[in-house]
Amino acid sequence: MKKTHYTEPWTKAVHFTIADAEHFYSETTPFQTIDFYKSKTFGTFFTLDGLMMVNEKDEFIYHDMISHVPMAVNPNIKSVLIIGGGDGGTAREMARYKSLEKIDMVEIDERVVRLSQQYLPLTASSLDNDSRITLYFEDGLAFVQNAKAKSYDLILVDSTDPIGPGEGLFTKSFYENCMRALSDNGILINQHESPYFDEQKHEMVRAHAKIKDLFPIAEVYQFHQPTYPSGHWLFGFASKQYHPLKDHKKDQWESLGLKTKYYNSDIHQGAFMLPTYVKEALKNAS
Amino acid sequence: MKKTHYTEPWTKAVHFTIADAEHFYSETTPFQTIDFYKSKTFGTFFTLDGLMMVNEKDEFIYHDMISHVPMAVNPNIKSVLIIGGGDGGTAREMARYKSLEKIDMVEIDERVVRLSQQYLPLTASSLDNDSRITLYFEDGLAFVQNAKAKSYDLILVDSTDPIGPGEGLFTKSFYENCMRALSDNGILINQHESPYFDEQKHEMVRAHAKIKDLFPIAEVYQFHQPTYPSGHWLFGFASKQYHPLKDHKKDQWESLGLKTKYYNSDIHQGAFMLPTYVKEALKNAS
Repeated sequence: MKKTHYTEPWTKAVHFTIADAEHFYSETTPFQTIDFYKSKTFGTFFTLDGLMMVNEKDEFIYHDMISHVPMAVNPNIKSVLIIGGGDGGTAREMARYKSLEKIDMVEIDERVVRLSQQYLPLTASSLDNDSRITLYFEDGLAFVQNAKAKSYDLILVDSTDPIGPGEGLFTKSFYENCMRALSDNGILINQHESPYFDEQKHEMVRAHAKIKDLFPIAEVYQFHQPTYPSGHWLFGFASKQYHPLKDHKKDQWESLGLKTKYYNSDIHQGAFMLPTYVKEALKNAS
Repeated sequence: MKKTHYTEPWTKAVHFTIADAEHFYSETTPFQTIDFYKSKTFGTFFTLDGLMMVNEKDEFIYHDMISHVPMAVNPNIKSVLIIGGGDGGTAREMARYKSLEKIDMVEIDERVVRLSQQYLPLTASSLDNDSRITLYFEDGLAFVQNAKAKSYDLILVDSTDPIGPGEGLFTKSFYENCMRALSDNGILINQHESPYFDEQKHEMVRAHAKIKDLFPIAEVYQFHQPTYPSGHWLFGFASKQYHPLKDHKKDQWESLGLKTKYYNSDIHQGAFMLPTYVKEALKNAS
């Protein structure tokens, strides 16, 4: 029987349901189960192991915030490594920067990319159309281990939660290898979970504790992503020398004239202004 | 049969479910139906006509943001009018300011107050314990119509959505009467719905169009309220002469030493930094 709605357990007790979603494709790969749905409210979306990754209604929020924040801090970034991001949305945003020379994307599961190219051209279309983008279907943890020292100016960790194939991307060893693979100006942006429900807060705290041990600058910024648990979602900004606010190159970024639906120079600043309960949880992270 | 879960339709097609909630009280008043639940995740919460108003887990977010933002712009506020806010959380936060002389609270439905006093002391306790607070069980729209000109420095509209008893609190006539009842330094904060789903966005736009026609300063600020539809929620800040950022009295507010779990001087600034799609919807409001 065709499923005509989608329910995601945000926690054991809190469930998010899309009642106008029709399931149209399922595939189990060696890494995970991928399901595609079409919804009147959210457009096409897909899930990995039953958690929504991307939908057409609000993918712009996540992809704006992972991409433009670091580019507005260091507009001289030339080489970028995207880890995960199989839907292609992060690569799409990065490809808008003409100044970039190399965009390597490492996705463990080729099927996520191929199915996104088939069913989600909104996010995946640039993967075919930009010669600077190279796809690697490999484990991200191994890839950064083997990467040359100081070979990337920016690493974007566009990962799932730290269970299943994304688990290695939340380890100290992974962050150490990112540190090593980053140039002296390097910036690391990572999917940083959420402060609200205990399940995601636990992972937020663990990730931050590891990153702030390694990087001289380790900040966290927030955004409104209504289709992720609690709608309150975070990225980490870690860097060897750039501070996300003190080194914000507002005018330089604005001179590029990129049109964005979520990101702007105000929200660049505002996103780093965290509620007290989030600041305290991060401060106590160890 | 006892209900052991709570489901709220955020839109026709998007539903939010709390599976560890036990329903323990229901009452239909001349104005609405009030239901109380106990949840392992959220503590005690109540709904009005099937929409969650307040829960013990995150009421601090809403009440911090409605109260402390205007008080950090004009620390000389003496007289406050709260419209709605039957759970008592807004009055509780206002009562923390020793400098206030008068806190009038107008709630159309006395039963909301009495049941909150019985079941939700976390928010309602200050209603009994502060002689500056006067409760009026009247229609808020009529109350401001009859209020003396320039009799309040601050009006806080802590209302339901613009359907049912809250409807009159989203009309031009109501905002005009607020304008008249406010002193020359007056500030109006109002529940401003949400930009994400069409249902709430429609009301956000309508409210802003009316307010910006009347007040020389009309801004909107956002916060993360995970139990309201989409988790992306807004308040309006309208004023005769104070700008929420240019007139922010950071040091003066901090010198009061109030402990808060969500609000702080950083988020005061950050909350006004809106995503591009929200700015555009507000700019085009007419």
